[in-house]
Amino acid sequence: MVYLTRVERFNAAHKLWVDDWSEEENFGMFGKCANKNWHGHNYKLEVTVAGEPDPITGFIVDAKLLSEIIREFVIEELDHKNLNLDVPFIKKPMQPTTENLVVCIWKLLEDKIPSGKLFKLKLIETENIFVEYWGE
Amino acid sequence: MVYLTRVERFNAAHKLWVDDWSEEENFGMFGKCANKNWHGHNYKLEVTVAGEPDPITGFIVDAKLLSEIIREFVIEELDHKNLNLDVPFIKKPMQPTTENLVVCIWKLLEDKIPSGKLFKLKLIETENIFVEYWGE
Amino acid sequence: MVYLTRVERFNAAHKLWVDDWSEEENFGMFGKCANKNWHGHNYKLEVTVAGEPDPITGFIVDAKLLSEIIREFVIEELDHKNLNLDVPFIKKPMQPTTENLVVCIWKLLEDKIPSGKLFKLKLIETENIFVEYWGE
Amino acid sequence: MVYLTRVERFNAAHKLWVDDWSEEENFGMFGKCANKNWHGHNYKLEVTVAGEPDPITGFIVDAKLLSEIIREFVIEELDHKNLNLDVPFIKKPMQPTTENLVVCIWKLLEDKIPSGKLFKLKLIETENIFVEYWGE
Amino acid sequence: MVYLTRVERFNAAHKLWVDDWSEEENFGMFGKCANKNWHGHNYKLEVTVAGEPDPITGFIVDAKLLSEIIREFVIEELDHKNLNLDVPFIKKPMQPTTENLVVCIWKLLEDKIPSGKLFKLKLIETENIFVEYWGE
Amino acid sequence: MVYLTRVERFNAAHKLWVDDWSEEENFGMFGKCANKNWHGHNYKLEVTVAGEPDPITGFIVDAKLLSEIIREFVIEELDHKNLNLDVPFIKKPMQPTTENLVVCIWKLLEDKIPSGKLFKLKLIETENIFVEYWGE
Repeated sequence: MVYLTRVERFNAAHKLWVDDWSEEENFGMFGKCANKNWHGHNYKLEVTVAGEPDPITGFIVDAKLLSEIIREFVIEELDHKNLNLDVPFIKKPMQPTTENLVVCIWKLLEDKIPSGKLFKLKLIETENIFVEYWGE
Repeated sequence: MVYLTRVERFNAAHKLWVDDWSEEENFGMFGKCANKNWHGHNYKLEVTVAGEPDPITGFIVDAKLLSEIIREFVIEELDHKNLNLDVPFIKKPMQPTTENLVVCIWKLLEDKIPSGKLFKLKLIETENIFVEYWGE
Repeated sequence: MVYLTRVERFNAAHKLWVDDWSEEENFGMFGKCANKNWHGHNYKLEVTVAGEPDPITGFIVDAKLLSEIIREFVIEELDHKNLNLDVPFIKKPMQPTTENLVVCIWKLLEDKIPSGKLFKLKLIETENIFVEYWGE
Repeated sequence: MVYLTRVERFNAAHKLWVDDWSEEENFGMFGKCANKNWHGHNYKLEVTVAGEPDPITGFIVDAKLLSEIIREFVIEELDHKNLNLDVPFIKKPMQPTTENLVVCIWKLLEDKIPSGKLFKLKLIETENIFVEYWGE
Repeated sequence: MVYLTRVERFNAAHKLWVDDWSEEENFGMFGKCANKNWHGHNYKLEVTVAGEPDPITGFIVDAKLLSEIIREFVIEELDHKNLNLDVPFIKKPMQPTTENLVVCIWKLLEDKIPSGKLFKLKLIETENIFVEYWGE
Repeated sequence: MVYLTRVERFNAAHKLWVDDWSEEENFGMFGKCANKNWHGHNYKLEVTVAGEPDPITGFIVDAKLLSEIIREFVIEELDHKNLNLDVPFIKKPMQPTTENLVVCIWKLLEDKIPSGKLFKLKLIETENIFVEYWGE
């Protein structure tokens, strides 16, 4: 079993805000991330697929095809978007945190991997914060 | 003359949109950057100060003090903000492009450098795009 | 289960030296790391917490609070310090290697994580050497 | 159990090409990687060794010795080489993909680790593609 | 005057070899870079354009258009190619060194910049070696 | 004129301390950098040489030879050393700041460049602080 990772990127706006809470409660929990007019990030997404190298091509999965699939099903939905307003699979009351987002991306990709099996996602929000998810 | 650079970071939302243009013209010029609900970036700012090292301290400028000044006058204004809506010195019809932003930041910092002289700014928007400005 | 990582940094001096050994034995084993007047590194520490995203906040753990805890209990103890002389939890005959240090940091943080569970530490000494520890 | 990683680098040329296939089939599968006159990469190799820190030295494995072993048995064979033509352990019909290469490197290193046990290899081909292998 | 830089990448094979010299002389001068079956690199190219931000768009040059131009006139010619064999503008006796390559790329781009003026190229061959060129 | 840069690295300990000042004055000016038992950094040094590519070799300067020279005259003096105690060319009352260090390194290298001319040094102390020097 070898594990191949393909990296893609998207830039998006978001804010963290619980409608049922007061402004004070929101800023208490989320700090500057609660600013009402949004802020944003350059996100980096690492998609890892597990499989055995094909005896002829030496590929677990065609990395170019994998890139196209990630772009079609994930990047197209998220790039230059507002994660609170524009993304059909992020619906209130779910917050667009990196933790929730990585689980959503797993569902988008899980059954789209053309060969091998989706093994892990890593979603990097800033150079100081990232999340990882193994599907369960 | 030695040149010392201090790096700071901020995360912000923005969009590029000319009010006098049609939606078609805006998307024609700005592409996905015109998406109405904003997108965002992790910006990195490099501030370079020129000076002669002090014979006693060996400092051109105290890098910790320089950091505090950049944070007070620049990062505080831009971090977790919407560059189109929240920033007093970015006013329509000026677009919040990286080019315009770097010139605005120069004006904020120019007369705040405690020793030495502001020499250069570099503002990095993504790993593929950055701008530089020497003040003229 | 989602895994969130927060990155912090510290700069420290150290040397590797076994008191019971001759100078020759020390340099034979540790090379330049045995230089008596110390050398130093920019260390980078990645702290990974495992948990389920809170249904309301979307957080496994508040990354800002996690950062404050790492700074209070780890960075405060190590930053701008001499790992052989200044750090109460690194005592002779324990060498201040990255391997030993990562185990010490685990003990400092293990019961301080406010939600979720400490899952992994990664301690990066140079761009060519890093260690990882899962607590056992 | 602590895990220490040492990073080394090599630069090599390769192409992907199945002799039994037509030019059209090769370009259909491998795209530009099938260009007959080769292309190349700066590869980065991360070698992770698992072990318990020695109670005297604090080392799982001497990182300097580990570096020398990786250089002797791996880098020497691959650096400034053509992976299709120059490398004795990459023989047709095996393609010099990153997936196949990482398995070959495992075999080279598996019984050469002076203390601790080879735990994982990571081979980075570009900033967008890397593979990982745990030996099975 | 503001300076905007766009980064693009290509992967290529090359070797350094003077036909008029003996094998010994070639290896004496070029070391492993003279290996007859080629080696290769992941090259990174930074293209800097100088100009004044347009008062309406805030652009010196449309970075997306700049990217397309760099890809059409430079990357298309160099990516997944052999710099000694496949590139029409690198002809013997010119060696495909990074120094010579950056001057060639300048000539390709000089009169293709749609607004502003080509100011500088930076070509990064490895994480330890890069060249810069200002056109003269 | 093309400019070639070679990158080298060293790890060192230092502290900032003016003997004529009280402890309070020293900590007031230098903060944690005044800690008496030292701290340290992974320094990165970029050496830029200007010249015209040789018509036969395509080299401004042989990068491998340049690397050996930097290692012999600079890295050997600084790597795994204490900048306050071990380095003959850093003598009290000169503080071992990055600013002073870069000027010292210029003097070491200025007349050792085998072809071309020393153009610039960049010395990176942390990912947030670096200095540059053009020799005057």
